[in-house]
Amino acid sequence: MAGSTLGTIFKITTWGESHGKGIGVVVDGCPAGLSLEEKDIQCFLDRRKPGQSKFTTMRNEGDQVEILSGVFEGKTTGTPISMIVWNTDQRSKDYGNIMEVYRPGHADYTFDEKYGFRDYRGGGRSSGRETIGRVAAGAIAACFLRSLGITVTAYTRSVGPYEVKEDRFDLKERDQNRLYMPDKETSLLAEQYLEEMMGRKDSVGGVVECIIDGVPAGIGDPVFDKYDASLAKAVMSIGAVKGFEIGDGFLASHALGSENNDGFCMGPDGRAKKVTNHAGGILGGISDGSRVIFRAAFKPTPSIAQPQKTVTRQGEETEIEIKGRHDPIIVPRAVVVVEAMAALTTVDLLLANLSARMDGIISFYNQEAE
Amino acid sequence: MAGSTLGTIFKITTWGESHGKGIGVVVDGCPAGLSLEEKDIQCFLDRRKPGQSKFTTMRNEGDQVEILSGVFEGKTTGTPISMIVWNTDQRSKDYGNIMEVYRPGHADYTFDEKYGFRDYRGGGRSSGRETIGRVAAGAIAACFLRSLGITVTAYTRSVGPYEVKEDRFDLKERDQNRLYMPDKETSLLAEQYLEEMMGRKDSVGGVVECIIDGVPAGIGDPVFDKYDASLAKAVMSIGAVKGFEIGDGFLASHALGSENNDGFCMGPDGRAKKVTNHAGGILGGISDGSRVIFRAAFKPTPSIAQPQKTVTRQGEETEIEIKGRHDPIIVPRAVVVVEAMAALTTVDLLLANLSARMDGIISFYNQEAE
Amino acid sequence: MAGSTLGTIFKITTWGESHGKGIGVVVDGCPAGLSLEEKDIQCFLDRRKPGQSKFTTMRNEGDQVEILSGVFEGKTTGTPISMIVWNTDQRSKDYGNIMEVYRPGHADYTFDEKYGFRDYRGGGRSSGRETIGRVAAGAIAACFLRSLGITVTAYTRSVGPYEVKEDRFDLKERDQNRLYMPDKETSLLAEQYLEEMMGRKDSVGGVVECIIDGVPAGIGDPVFDKYDASLAKAVMSIGAVKGFEIGDGFLASHALGSENNDGFCMGPDGRAKKVTNHAGGILGGISDGSRVIFRAAFKPTPSIAQPQKTVTRQGEETEIEIKGRHDPIIVPRAVVVVEAMAALTTVDLLLANLSARMDGIISFYNQEAE
Amino acid sequence: MAGSTLGTIFKITTWGESHGKGIGVVVDGCPAGLSLEEKDIQCFLDRRKPGQSKFTTMRNEGDQVEILSGVFEGKTTGTPISMIVWNTDQRSKDYGNIMEVYRPGHADYTFDEKYGFRDYRGGGRSSGRETIGRVAAGAIAACFLRSLGITVTAYTRSVGPYEVKEDRFDLKERDQNRLYMPDKETSLLAEQYLEEMMGRKDSVGGVVECIIDGVPAGIGDPVFDKYDASLAKAVMSIGAVKGFEIGDGFLASHALGSENNDGFCMGPDGRAKKVTNHAGGILGGISDGSRVIFRAAFKPTPSIAQPQKTVTRQGEETEIEIKGRHDPIIVPRAVVVVEAMAALTTVDLLLANLSARMDGIISFYNQEAE
Repeated sequence: MAGSTLGTIFKITTWGESHGKGIGVVVDGCPAGLSLEEKDIQCFLDRRKPGQSKFTTMRNEGDQVEILSGVFEGKTTGTPISMIVWNTDQRSKDYGNIMEVYRPGHADYTFDEKYGFRDYRGGGRSSGRETIGRVAAGAIAACFLRSLGITVTAYTRSVGPYEVKEDRFDLKERDQNRLYMPDKETSLLAEQYLEEMMGRKDSVGGVVECIIDGVPAGIGDPVFDKYDASLAKAVMSIGAVKGFEIGDGFLASHALGSENNDGFCMGPDGRAKKVTNHAGGILGGISDGSRVIFRAAFKPTPSIAQPQKTVTRQGEETEIEIKGRHDPIIVPRAVVVVEAMAALTTVDLLLANLSARMDGIISFYNQEAE
Repeated sequence: MAGSTLGTIFKITTWGESHGKGIGVVVDGCPAGLSLEEKDIQCFLDRRKPGQSKFTTMRNEGDQVEILSGVFEGKTTGTPISMIVWNTDQRSKDYGNIMEVYRPGHADYTFDEKYGFRDYRGGGRSSGRETIGRVAAGAIAACFLRSLGITVTAYTRSVGPYEVKEDRFDLKERDQNRLYMPDKETSLLAEQYLEEMMGRKDSVGGVVECIIDGVPAGIGDPVFDKYDASLAKAVMSIGAVKGFEIGDGFLASHALGSENNDGFCMGPDGRAKKVTNHAGGILGGISDGSRVIFRAAFKPTPSIAQPQKTVTRQGEETEIEIKGRHDPIIVPRAVVVVEAMAALTTVDLLLANLSARMDGIISFYNQEAE
Repeated sequence: MAGSTLGTIFKITTWGESHGKGIGVVVDGCPAGLSLEEKDIQCFLDRRKPGQSKFTTMRNEGDQVEILSGVFEGKTTGTPISMIVWNTDQRSKDYGNIMEVYRPGHADYTFDEKYGFRDYRGGGRSSGRETIGRVAAGAIAACFLRSLGITVTAYTRSVGPYEVKEDRFDLKERDQNRLYMPDKETSLLAEQYLEEMMGRKDSVGGVVECIIDGVPAGIGDPVFDKYDASLAKAVMSIGAVKGFEIGDGFLASHALGSENNDGFCMGPDGRAKKVTNHAGGILGGISDGSRVIFRAAFKPTPSIAQPQKTVTRQGEETEIEIKGRHDPIIVPRAVVVVEAMAALTTVDLLLANLSARMDGIISFYNQEAE
Repeated sequence: MAGSTLGTIFKITTWGESHGKGIGVVVDGCPAGLSLEEKDIQCFLDRRKPGQSKFTTMRNEGDQVEILSGVFEGKTTGTPISMIVWNTDQRSKDYGNIMEVYRPGHADYTFDEKYGFRDYRGGGRSSGRETIGRVAAGAIAACFLRSLGITVTAYTRSVGPYEVKEDRFDLKERDQNRLYMPDKETSLLAEQYLEEMMGRKDSVGGVVECIIDGVPAGIGDPVFDKYDASLAKAVMSIGAVKGFEIGDGFLASHALGSENNDGFCMGPDGRAKKVTNHAGGILGGISDGSRVIFRAAFKPTPSIAQPQKTVTRQGEETEIEIKGRHDPIIVPRAVVVVEAMAALTTVDLLLANLSARMDGIISFYNQEAE
């Protein structure tokens, strides 16, 4: 089946392997007339680029995006936007030892089982480099959202046991923080912990939290295409994500109805407004006008230099130590990927919502006719 | 947009409101030749039927399913299977007071914002009754899976703070337990807790856990249509679910790589086998041949008889006490809905996987040609 | 695969066999707020109802539609609209002889080859009764279009060799004409011809033409989802259609560029306007604001009472004479089916077009926010 | 909406404009293990390449394809295959005069109406160059089909009034014929006609016929996704196609049932076989095991050097003479595009058919389990 396409109206199709010629994405269904330049996309890609600190892989890719179609004189034309990032620093020989051996925690074994063979030069399609396409497309989605006054902001919520404290939360800190953590004090403790684990040839997991502000009420569909369900799929499709929760999430399973329900009052703009936001901005799958907030749990990087038990393709038990260049933690570079997935999902549902009501449609076509 | 369809190959479309004529589903893409009778579906529906214990709503629906098409002489014909359950006990007048007032925790407000008005006689499309269509379709999916030796089993993992203990886990207990809990001792404590909260006109949340056994390695796609991402969307699309996790889930974010990675050994059948299963049976979005295990967090039932702050459609602040017939906890009746969603997702990906490899395709068409 | 769903945004799923319990359709994605009653649908179904003249099958079905969901207080709610027509006069025994023998021109053989067996009581899913679901859904699409000032009108263009003459064309004639032909004189000749062929136990083909007036410029997509390509699929999916053409169609293959190109002038409304309409209202797959016009070629009814060579399921050569109740010509009853398919396609593309331009989207969401 | 994707399982997404950086396609859902090299694709592209004879545009593009992903060591890997052809000879200045003026028969006007503006350097997304992506993807589909013994062969059936004669039909002639016509004598007359019309600054239309041999019975779905309906959409989505017919097509509308029905006899292989093939290889939307045959009508090239009436974007009436490099007839270069669309449609339905029957699915998964 064709599993490299996401979205129904704003539809992206990604392609490319870690050790092929490049990585790319085609964005189909982007409305015409959106201002767009390569730098709008590059600034997103730079946030996931490797080689930026001691906590990210030393692989040295420029990761420069090139727009190949769909943009003319600085505006989208309504036709597919094709983007490419060339692979320039593959060093396949580093990966030679994984040709015949299944790395624990990776998709080597499952790829072989599914397809009968695989591109053994690296993670192939399951490599973190696959997210380049997502981020490039997500950057366009973010531009779209900005033009409607909607912002998507993700950050590192926790690194191993070190979690951001509410009273020290400072979003401005995020962009100068090596761990993308909006709490300097916690991030310093987290860095110490990371260095200690790196010393032990081990890796660490964490949690990314994401906020979407400015979403009008009414976005999402009431049954299968709920806003939160769609976010869950998009975010869980990032490799290494093992859990997703919206609003109070798993904590809501411990709460009482009287605690968890968000009462309504009248807001200053004369619209109904929730007094609290345990729901995370979505009721019955549809945005309620308050802040959307969700979290994603990332497992530790599976590539570690410790010896691990495994087997070969030929069925012999063996051990493997993974020597390549790998991030000791996925979370900081994944922050922008989570933003991208949230932006893509939101745009698709905003467009779907254009056809929710006859009055809006009639007014659209009467305006057009003038 | 059309948000009432789930699946790509095994595709279901549900319809119906809580206070309309009935609830139904069309299953399109079910292969021909599957043995199927109404009782195969009824036994699933009976598990979600209301009025079965003091912990479920007193609404008294027979919920008898009728198959209208797609089955001939006890076998599916390959054409769409349409099923209907008539609504017989609506009592709309009970709901009269919600016509103009938004119930906290419900989709009343968001429906009004999205569509401009709503069927105010009850939850409408966001009612728990919508899940009848899911469960009827899921029963067919479960029949399909059984014919391949695959079983899907969900149960109540926790009720409020009361969680099943591993050492008392007994699956046989589940089906005679009023809370669908595979641990009698914990369930008795949970029942006490529930009764206490009901006395306080309050409601309780909980967690459902689901196990899928027998899935061959290779199911799921490596990018957006990962098996776990697809499960996440399907399960998060159940009203009241606020979180989803696979394998170790959120705990993995606290683990180290050396702890979380599942090493491989050789199994007795001469195939690679994971030594542990922190991953929950899925690597890189593709099943690895071990048990698939995931959890869903349910919020407390939003309908409570306590007074809650809210507003009217006209913008006046007010209070509401919800007097209708409502479950004090959603979890026990949701167990079979989670099973249904897991079965539907698994069937769709099993069918998608038929086209993964040329060798399988050539052998299929050569066989056919004989 | 799931082949019983049509449309991307305005999505219909049909179900039901000729000799099952009933025939139905679920319309998902219909915007909220469209006025709709059962009689709006019934008047469409009455146009395809059997038993209305000597040229239509004597099968006597009431074909009364029932709306089961998605409509509340006379308006669509934005949720799926489920409709059913019960089968009441199946007389399966008439079809007993086709259980083991393949009828020429029918799908009996291909169903057996595809699914391994079939519902042998009649045409099953390939029966003309399957179009009931299309027509019921198409009636809703037609209501939608009327609210935008768009009308869809089909009629019989030819019966065997008898074709409507341009200078006698009179659309008012159509609805009182037994052959749905907008030319009384030609229709009388066609009736004579039909009676003669019925006397010879033979059947006749013909052509349906369809006009869509009022479509604004800009509908349809420039590559695969061209308006004309989408119409072609929808119309060719009606059983018995063997050809489709838009505008001058096959004649254009004989024309010169200088003859076939439609020049532009300025219209009275200050918009560009084509001087001629060889293109049939669509340029590059996108509507150009002029009348859309297309034709569909129908083969003769395959069921004839003459002896025909065929084989049995067991592989013996034999002859068959088909004695059931069958129309000697499909065309008159197919006229409304063609209208339905055209209306469905047009609505889906009108909705898709809502997301073509940023300016329209921004204005939609700003209006909403007020 | 996203209209640049075709297919459900074997899914292609094309991108690129005539005067952008390049043209490309992503093929998602191609099974793993298909042998594939760039030359398998190049030989298809060479058949649509411009500049090959006096009847094709003098635009001089190398049109060399580059595979960017999805192929490893000469085999497809099951992941998306991205292909690109760079634009190298755009000469945008030739098109300067169409910036403000709508060319008759082109999509200039409809693009402006839909998107608010367009890439005025050429046909943009509606250029014939868009078909490069289709042909590259179609070449992969053709490789797939060959591995199942299925061949797709299209040719020029007529040029203006000059049509291939059955008794002179010689398929070997096709590939050395400048008009791709399998009848040398007719093609010489057609060439004379073409030269005469070129002398008058005019252009010519024609018909392409396509044969698919070796399709097993059972391919296609019985309702909306009929094999012929799917072919119709795919073929009508080629710019300049105005009509489509399968088997006897429009002629069937003049035939009697006794003439048009194809009786069955027993074939030498012990399977049922149609005595004739008026149906064109498809019954009830499903292949019947005989040759699939269809035709597509192409309009004359709209770009002609004669003066034509038109209007400017600003609403002034004017005349235009189109001086660029244009084919006087589209048909010869479109032959391979029709083959591509037929191959793509056939592969998608062959893959869909893998899930038609439980017995095949059970046997697939038991084999896999061994």
